Amino acid sequence: MSRFEPNLRIPGPTALPPSVREAGGRQMINHRGPEFAALIGRIQAGMKPYFGTAGDVAILTCAGTGGLEAAVVNTLSPGDRVLGISIGAFGDRFAQIAEAYGARVERMTAEWGWAAAPDEVRERLAAGGGDYRAVLLTHNETSTGVMNPLSQLAAAIRAAAPDALILVDTVSSLGAVPFEMDAWGCDVVVTGSQKAWMAAPGLAMVAASDRGWAAMEAATMPRFYLDLRRHRDLLGKGETPWTPAVAVAFQVDEGLRLMAEETPAGIFARHEICAAATQAGLEALGFRLFADPAHRSRTVTAAWIPEGLDWKAFNGELKRRDLILAGGQGKLAGKVFRVGHLGMVRLDEILAAIGTIEEVLAEQGRLPSAGVGVAAAERAAIGLEQGRQSAGAAAAGAGATAAGGAR
Amino acid sequence: MSRFEPNLRIPGPTALPPSVREAGGRQMINHRGPEFAALIGRIQAGMKPYFGTAGDVAILTCAGTGGLEAAVVNTLSPGDRVLGISIGAFGDRFAQIAEAYGARVERMTAEWGWAAAPDEVRERLAAGGGDYRAVLLTHNETSTGVMNPLSQLAAAIRAAAPDALILVDTVSSLGAVPFEMDAWGCDVVVTGSQKAWMAAPGLAMVAASDRGWAAMEAATMPRFYLDLRRHRDLLGKGETPWTPAVAVAFQVDEGLRLMAEETPAGIFARHEICAAATQAGLEALGFRLFADPAHRSRTVTAAWIPEGLDWKAFNGELKRRDLILAGGQGKLAGKVFRVGHLGMVRLDEILAAIGTIEEVLAEQGRLPSAGVGVAAAERAAIGLEQGRQSAGAAAAGAGATAAGGAR
Repeated sequence: MSRFEPNLRIPGPTALPPSVREAGGRQMINHRGPEFAALIGRIQAGMKPYFGTAGDVAILTCAGTGGLEAAVVNTLSPGDRVLGISIGAFGDRFAQIAEAYGARVERMTAEWGWAAAPDEVRERLAAGGGDYRAVLLTHNETSTGVMNPLSQLAAAIRAAAPDALILVDTVSSLGAVPFEMDAWGCDVVVTGSQKAWMAAPGLAMVAASDRGWAAMEAATMPRFYLDLRRHRDLLGKGETPWTPAVAVAFQVDEGLRLMAEETPAGIFARHEICAAATQAGLEALGFRLFADPAHRSRTVTAAWIPEGLDWKAFNGELKRRDLILAGGQGKLAGKVFRVGHLGMVRLDEILAAIGTIEEVLAEQGRLPSAGVGVAAAERAAIGLEQGRQSAGAAAAGAGATAAGGAR
Repeated sequence: MSRFEPNLRIPGPTALPPSVREAGGRQMINHRGPEFAALIGRIQAGMKPYFGTAGDVAILTCAGTGGLEAAVVNTLSPGDRVLGISIGAFGDRFAQIAEAYGARVERMTAEWGWAAAPDEVRERLAAGGGDYRAVLLTHNETSTGVMNPLSQLAAAIRAAAPDALILVDTVSSLGAVPFEMDAWGCDVVVTGSQKAWMAAPGLAMVAASDRGWAAMEAATMPRFYLDLRRHRDLLGKGETPWTPAVAVAFQVDEGLRLMAEETPAGIFARHEICAAATQAGLEALGFRLFADPAHRSRTVTAAWIPEGLDWKAFNGELKRRDLILAGGQGKLAGKVFRVGHLGMVRLDEILAAIGTIEEVLAEQGRLPSAGVGVAAAERAAIGLEQGRQSAGAAAAGAGATAAGGAR
């Protein structure tokens, strides 16, 4: 064991800030008492802006996959025609859930590494006769490091199949990047505590549109534990129908407090910078990134394991230096590795991760030039930061001019 | 807010020992790495003796209710005939879950406050023609403070309906009282982290017999998130199919370590003593207990709210003194209150709770005689302790005699 805290760079569970860790060690409280009611009220209120919704957010005790199942079983009926748009392992899983409960799922898959194309989705829905009950979408595909252009996809679906419900997996994106559920017309949106929220796993947060809530009245897939209406009905009392993961709720509450201090704009910029630094650093070290450059994720990066590199041994060396990365999932097992950069992540940790990879490459005689990875990461970050500052200055200047003109 | 830690005497979540709290505040780890694999292996091994099973124990991220749903949906098919034996709110819930998934549930209910009678169960099953696919049983009914005679009930079911699966809710009993799943012939047994295990809520542990695992191959109720076979199949790798509630797993692991130090015999004796003290103390204070004296629970006690006592005001005074009790559930709301005595509970905390109740009664001029409650609690505890010691001495004496006779 090391004397140092590992650099946990997997796409969740993410590392916890000190005050969030402390919150996880609090003494239990009565989950039917006023203290918990206040807590769940704060989580509700704190979550809504990140969802971009004015509606209710149900707090379920389960993994993100349980949240996806809740989205399906609460709004659909066996036999419903569903378009499952998949760009990776989690898109496949979403479709499998709907199939397990008897939906007629038609798969529309992009080659792994690519995003779904709004035009193709529009065409597919139009060609399909327009009687789809729902479309399943993944915002951020954790297995491939691809972030779908969600607002454009939602617009395409709304145009071609106005009555279809849009169910969205935002497990590994919400809270880290802008999302506007109400404005984009999404119907059920699911996230998980162990991702951008900087808390331990155990809670899934599920929001639904008015149309989503209405669909639940007609949906006949069986459900009990994951019944969202039971959750919504108790939100007013500040309770959950079943005993909630209280310690995780303490942590999410504290995570939201830290996020409010940082502001959403600050959080989103930090994720953009950390993603750019990771991607530039890995590329400078000679790794080929898995995702189409136009749709690289801001929360997780997948890179090909180069030919001839013994990943198990290489990863063992990284671990010995306290850098924890994730392997490939599903058919990408042994082919890619993944770096998580979401939740509690700062540029210095990304530089540390790139630096550690660089050291092991050097040891193996695979490093093109010492310092090339960290320098590229730093350049990418500073470039973004300066671009943001000059854009801010220009906007401020334009504002001043406009204000001056109005005088 | 008080400067003192409250005396959390609800039937879960239970108060956490200091080292368990600390475990809940640990930094996250990779749930697909060796550290987590070792952790889940220890939980597996540590849990089995309390279940009384040599079989696998699945670790699900959900509340106890999710565990009950897993028991149902993994082993049954829509249309299956099921006998739901209910003695309270949680027995009713178990039956509702089976109904929600299309089982034909026949209810057999005892009057609340009473246990199920093995003879009646045997007769009911025999009269029913013996084609029940499953029987749903509650070991400890948290809503009424009644503990069913589980071994006798299981024997009655085995005799009258040898092919019926026995699915058992031990959410609020397992770990606090002896249980022998394999010996008694139970097929699926469910418990939850926030009860006897001294951890926060968020994990349900579900064990199945060989017959239970076999039933899952034929069962057609839809399932995905709660699919027990997906969990079992990954146990060998030390993983769970979906991201687990890692922090709660840290806590359960530490709770099991503390429990091993105390030994099962010590834990069971402590629960018996705390239950007896609670019940004697409340009765001495003039409260009428809700449960049939022959089947009072060793983990939770329900007492009638006396006529003329304004519970809301009374409970407010208890809370002001940092004693947190639970109210009544379902149709018992406003009629009973409940005292939890499971998990991390010691006699001194029970004496403290009885003392606090006594003080508020005194303030309201309702106390028969000062000190009568705590004295009765202490007497009950010491009586049990001395009985245990003299039984131990007698057994040791008999052993010595037998050994002498054998010489």
